Amino acid sequence: MAFRKIINDPVYGFITIDQPLIFDIISHPWFQRLRRIKQMALAHLVYPGAVHTRLHHALGAYHLMGNALQVLKQKGTAITDEEDTAAKIAILLHDIGHGPFSHALESVLMKNMHHEELSLLLMKQLNREFKGSLQMAIDIFTNAYPKKFLHQLVSGQLDVDRMDYLTRDSFFTGVSEGVIGYDRIIKMLVVHNGTLMVEEKAIYSIEKFLVARRLMYWQVYLHKTVLAAEMMLVKILERARDIGIKNNLNLSDSNLKKFLLHQHKNIADDPAPFCALDDTDVVAVIKSWQNHPDKVLSLLCNGIMNRTLLKVKLQNLPISEAEITHITQRTMKQLDIDEEAASYLVFTGEAVNRTYNPFDEKIHILFKDGQVRDISQVDNALIQHNLSGAVKKFYICYLKSSL
Amino acid sequence: MAFRKIINDPVYGFITIDQPLIFDIISHPWFQRLRRIKQMALAHLVYPGAVHTRLHHALGAYHLMGNALQVLKQKGTAITDEEDTAAKIAILLHDIGHGPFSHALESVLMKNMHHEELSLLLMKQLNREFKGSLQMAIDIFTNAYPKKFLHQLVSGQLDVDRMDYLTRDSFFTGVSEGVIGYDRIIKMLVVHNGTLMVEEKAIYSIEKFLVARRLMYWQVYLHKTVLAAEMMLVKILERARDIGIKNNLNLSDSNLKKFLLHQHKNIADDPAPFCALDDTDVVAVIKSWQNHPDKVLSLLCNGIMNRTLLKVKLQNLPISEAEITHITQRTMKQLDIDEEAASYLVFTGEAVNRTYNPFDEKIHILFKDGQVRDISQVDNALIQHNLSGAVKKFYICYLKSSL
Amino acid sequence: MAFRKIINDPVYGFITIDQPLIFDIISHPWFQRLRRIKQMALAHLVYPGAVHTRLHHALGAYHLMGNALQVLKQKGTAITDEEDTAAKIAILLHDIGHGPFSHALESVLMKNMHHEELSLLLMKQLNREFKGSLQMAIDIFTNAYPKKFLHQLVSGQLDVDRMDYLTRDSFFTGVSEGVIGYDRIIKMLVVHNGTLMVEEKAIYSIEKFLVARRLMYWQVYLHKTVLAAEMMLVKILERARDIGIKNNLNLSDSNLKKFLLHQHKNIADDPAPFCALDDTDVVAVIKSWQNHPDKVLSLLCNGIMNRTLLKVKLQNLPISEAEITHITQRTMKQLDIDEEAASYLVFTGEAVNRTYNPFDEKIHILFKDGQVRDISQVDNALIQHNLSGAVKKFYICYLKSSL
Amino acid sequence: MAFRKIINDPVYGFITIDQPLIFDIISHPWFQRLRRIKQMALAHLVYPGAVHTRLHHALGAYHLMGNALQVLKQKGTAITDEEDTAAKIAILLHDIGHGPFSHALESVLMKNMHHEELSLLLMKQLNREFKGSLQMAIDIFTNAYPKKFLHQLVSGQLDVDRMDYLTRDSFFTGVSEGVIGYDRIIKMLVVHNGTLMVEEKAIYSIEKFLVARRLMYWQVYLHKTVLAAEMMLVKILERARDIGIKNNLNLSDSNLKKFLLHQHKNIADDPAPFCALDDTDVVAVIKSWQNHPDKVLSLLCNGIMNRTLLKVKLQNLPISEAEITHITQRTMKQLDIDEEAASYLVFTGEAVNRTYNPFDEKIHILFKDGQVRDISQVDNALIQHNLSGAVKKFYICYLKSSL
Repeated sequence: MAFRKIINDPVYGFITIDQPLIFDIISHPWFQRLRRIKQMALAHLVYPGAVHTRLHHALGAYHLMGNALQVLKQKGTAITDEEDTAAKIAILLHDIGHGPFSHALESVLMKNMHHEELSLLLMKQLNREFKGSLQMAIDIFTNAYPKKFLHQLVSGQLDVDRMDYLTRDSFFTGVSEGVIGYDRIIKMLVVHNGTLMVEEKAIYSIEKFLVARRLMYWQVYLHKTVLAAEMMLVKILERARDIGIKNNLNLSDSNLKKFLLHQHKNIADDPAPFCALDDTDVVAVIKSWQNHPDKVLSLLCNGIMNRTLLKVKLQNLPISEAEITHITQRTMKQLDIDEEAASYLVFTGEAVNRTYNPFDEKIHILFKDGQVRDISQVDNALIQHNLSGAVKKFYICYLKSSL
Repeated sequence: MAFRKIINDPVYGFITIDQPLIFDIISHPWFQRLRRIKQMALAHLVYPGAVHTRLHHALGAYHLMGNALQVLKQKGTAITDEEDTAAKIAILLHDIGHGPFSHALESVLMKNMHHEELSLLLMKQLNREFKGSLQMAIDIFTNAYPKKFLHQLVSGQLDVDRMDYLTRDSFFTGVSEGVIGYDRIIKMLVVHNGTLMVEEKAIYSIEKFLVARRLMYWQVYLHKTVLAAEMMLVKILERARDIGIKNNLNLSDSNLKKFLLHQHKNIADDPAPFCALDDTDVVAVIKSWQNHPDKVLSLLCNGIMNRTLLKVKLQNLPISEAEITHITQRTMKQLDIDEEAASYLVFTGEAVNRTYNPFDEKIHILFKDGQVRDISQVDNALIQHNLSGAVKKFYICYLKSSL
Repeated sequence: MAFRKIINDPVYGFITIDQPLIFDIISHPWFQRLRRIKQMALAHLVYPGAVHTRLHHALGAYHLMGNALQVLKQKGTAITDEEDTAAKIAILLHDIGHGPFSHALESVLMKNMHHEELSLLLMKQLNREFKGSLQMAIDIFTNAYPKKFLHQLVSGQLDVDRMDYLTRDSFFTGVSEGVIGYDRIIKMLVVHNGTLMVEEKAIYSIEKFLVARRLMYWQVYLHKTVLAAEMMLVKILERARDIGIKNNLNLSDSNLKKFLLHQHKNIADDPAPFCALDDTDVVAVIKSWQNHPDKVLSLLCNGIMNRTLLKVKLQNLPISEAEITHITQRTMKQLDIDEEAASYLVFTGEAVNRTYNPFDEKIHILFKDGQVRDISQVDNALIQHNLSGAVKKFYICYLKSSL
Repeated sequence: MAFRKIINDPVYGFITIDQPLIFDIISHPWFQRLRRIKQMALAHLVYPGAVHTRLHHALGAYHLMGNALQVLKQKGTAITDEEDTAAKIAILLHDIGHGPFSHALESVLMKNMHHEELSLLLMKQLNREFKGSLQMAIDIFTNAYPKKFLHQLVSGQLDVDRMDYLTRDSFFTGVSEGVIGYDRIIKMLVVHNGTLMVEEKAIYSIEKFLVARRLMYWQVYLHKTVLAAEMMLVKILERARDIGIKNNLNLSDSNLKKFLLHQHKNIADDPAPFCALDDTDVVAVIKSWQNHPDKVLSLLCNGIMNRTLLKVKLQNLPISEAEITHITQRTMKQLDIDEEAASYLVFTGEAVNRTYNPFDEKIHILFKDGQVRDISQVDNALIQHNLSGAVKKFYICYLKSSL
């Protein structure tokens, strides 16, 4: 009897693993670490169901990759067994480089290093461990592999990554309107001139996909309470770093401390410390700082733990200097702190979302007559140029005037 | 123990009937007749699950009306028990005037009379039967009742009619992308200055609702195979009417015959014959005409029964005269028939859909600061003026060149 | 590009047809006729969503067959492409012999002929039409094919027929508790010593399946209102037959009449008349008899059309003669009819259900150590001998004492 | 406008909070702590979706309580507004006393104190904080309130606690067969003679509920891999405690350490330390012990982190002494450790489940004729005496013979 493992998934029913190599990758401690990194960081403070993990997302994307490859093969696209496995490995590992709280803390902990770079770096390391059997997956991941559509399935406008995260995030948050017709889109995928595109009849499904994504951004990913919580997380770590030296902050000489202070070794040389980090390291220090003498730090840490978050105002125009100054001074007085300290409690930022960018990210539609057009160029397109510009909103986070 | 009936509904779980009057209306033969009228006419030829009935839709819309009224009451809008019941009755009966195959045959059988007029006429008759207890429901239905928002719930941009039919049609066809967030939209309904509107945070849900509707139109309601089948139905009845006199067509002096020949009595004076019509009357004659000597009639009847449908071409430009002539002549030759006869097998038409019409049909958004704006006027609106124009497509139905 | 048609199914998402022969069978008028036969006869009078068709069920069972065959092949069971197609055809056509209102009217219209016999007879006819390409399907259907497990998939304790109808009927009625874990059971299927069985870890799923079936029987299939309605249907046709000769009943010399009077030709010689019958023929005559002078006939016909059904009492003991006599006499007086006439309005019957019959219908469990045991023989079995006896309930249908 | 908060829940759609007191309780840090305690401890190692929290379960049970109370009121049971609120508070707080990893670590950390006792203790403390407004909730929780059915809704055979956890656990694991018809059961609840029971027509739903629970126990809660993981957790903490003193184990003088060593103060006097504990404290120490010099401890900690779990054998008979001895000695040799150390890696235990206990836990069915019978006493009962005994299985956990 052939090798076969089945995993229950509330989203797709069952996920099948039928190759020992795939199973070995999933069993690797670095992959298992993704169990301890929430896919949606602190979104669960607004959507209590959103506690699913990076590991679960990776498995889901792997499942969709299998479906997509099968559809393309049925439509006559040549894909060898080796390419099939490589594409599945590439998507399984595409997020292996995520650190604690995913995007939220990337800038604080991994200065100057995007999680995709880290994923690649770890994939190379794993490739050595697995004796070269990940090479084609790496080539697909880096778009060095000649069959470009395989890379597009991993990372592109219609990749299985976003199909899974939109579907999964919508499922776990309960925001049912974020549901996309992933199965229909996958069934309409086609490779034409070496490029991944969709058949004509998928036009409305693609529009729906883009609108669902837009909805998920504003309603979930950039929800102002989620924004506030994740910015508080950033401010906690920044504050800890800034007061750390003189306050002899108890980080127990920890692994996290080295990353926070950017004192860790080069990850390419020694990936182990990075691969030991996960959400619990951050939560553990936050819990320990709840009673820290630094007012700002303890206030923020208690806020995250007890869900007493900073207020947020989101608006279309930049926040005025006058408003910032006014609120900052109120906060300085309220807590009897200086301006520098107040800057961790009163701060501004920008939230950006674009529904679709027809310049960077093409979604090609293959018409029955052989024509290929971008989704924004079809007759009576819903997705138009004026929509495609990035939409920027400005926010200010601040402390309530009364505690 | 209070009066209480529970009906299982695969879409909403349970539908509760807790008033004897409502139960009596549902039990009336005219309402029960709706069991024999399919909600989506011949769409089941493409989507085999789409065999649900007008009765089921009416019950579903009634259920959503109950939810909507409850939400509005919780938000402080004054609605008396009598108004509550009346609004529910109005939506239960809003489609009571539908004839066989709903919209598809309306123009053929009920010349010059829209189903809404018929619904009103039958509601008035029922009101006499129920001793005046439907008067307020009629006033709401005709928008004569002072609380205009009740009419808007029955018939308006955000009425429970379309919320149910989009949800239900999407459910039974399996076109899951047509799913709208009806529960979220209902929770965001609010009455402001006597008008029904939605709260600001529903903006993205409303956009999703309009895009889902757009998708359902093009993918389901105006699906070209559905279009062809429903036009064949029309052509069958027209052909039967046109050849009826000289061919002594066996309609068994039936009720249907009188409607087909527009020989029925005034419906207001005698509604019973109309209320005896349903889908089976039409299917029965079509079955009997499958072996009719008139080639055109039998060909069309066999086509519908056996799902060997006319071909359809859908395009953005009108069909050229040359093309029509060419195909007509081929068909005349193919079947050895004259041009008049061929016109039942080769014909053109238009399919029209509009995503949103900001002039006729406002969807008001109530902002937190008290402002009210139309959905097409909000910042970064997806739904824009250029989208809001009606989109017209042109089609030609024709016989395959080889049988 | 390979041949490929996709059908939307609300239950399974998509059903794929990837062989021209399968497509041709589905396109055959005899198969298309199944669109006009409701899967659940009159159950929609209680569960308004239950209007799905035999055609839809056949497509669903075909889909599950595909899944089951794929699982078995992955587990190493040898199944050739030809066998794969044949098994799919066998399940597609397993119900082709159903007449109007399926089981409900079988005894009245098709005296002495079970629908399975009819299915076989029509399959043989189709086999001639398709030049012998259905032979293996017929062998599987009749259990003449050496690989017995293929027949078991079509008709056995764990066949895809009942997996689909339980799933589908549960879906369309909205009785969500009838849901079975069809996907899990299919994944656990295995062929051992040529016999279809399930792996040990499926034990609880199988128990759940049997309990869900039991629930569906009592809650849906044998629901007393459904029972009453279907018995009324039988009584209508019996009454029409019995009064037909002297009353010159208008059956328009119809096709249905021949079956009703058992005057039709041998179906094996001339299957066309049978293949022209469907639900609409029955509804059409019932509609026409609503105003028939025979009180009993018109009362029953109006009852079905307007859903004013006979009352039913269901009990564990047989209905006493005294009670029957009492109610019969009341009814005779009430309508001023004789005893023979009253017997169509007051009658008794039995409803039988068995949860599981370990003697006739084995469900073999394959244990990891190679043992095979019946589900009723495993440790701590839920399904036990005392349960496995048939449970019989007795009912009486009667006219309300006041009309 | 009235007070109203809406929380998205993927299971029930929306959960509404419409009372400030309920909102304040949910906002309390002790309730927020439940966000950091997984509902299903380590079940996510088998079912990756099962990462939902105690907080989410408490909100879900609160939602079902609202539905149940509404149904009972509609059926004429007198329930005051105060009682309504109190019952909701009782269920919201019923699990407030859970410690890290819920049941799994209860015995290790909270020696001699069941989580229900702890819940009560914390409820009393909160009652003081909320100035007595939780008193009726406490009376309901402790069954001191005269209307006993309110306690039965919180804790009884048909309580909303198990309805939510079965529904929720089934949803998040993706074990769809565990789905129960909670909405139907709730609609069939009735209070008769002051006792909570269900109407006769719910019999099959109740049977389904008990069978679903049985399935969830064996397939999920007592899944042997979950069992192994949770026992490893226990062994880690026991090992740490046992080697702690002489090994100067780094527990940073932490809060967790005090509980581990049972050195914490009386919780009734000082609940704060207990209310600071959550899953992250345990994960943090396990991570830190991955490189501990104690072979046994580090092996177990690495096992949990990397999901390289002990093997388990589950059987109906007790594990023989010979087998235990044999494996223990192999392990001693394998790791070069003594017998005492090996006892953390090779150990036995029992898993117990009962489908239904008709003696302790009655499910009363109210028949239409006024009779009341237990579910195991109805005609043709599925749930019988021989099923109702507890089923005990015996397991042994051990280290693979090769590492």
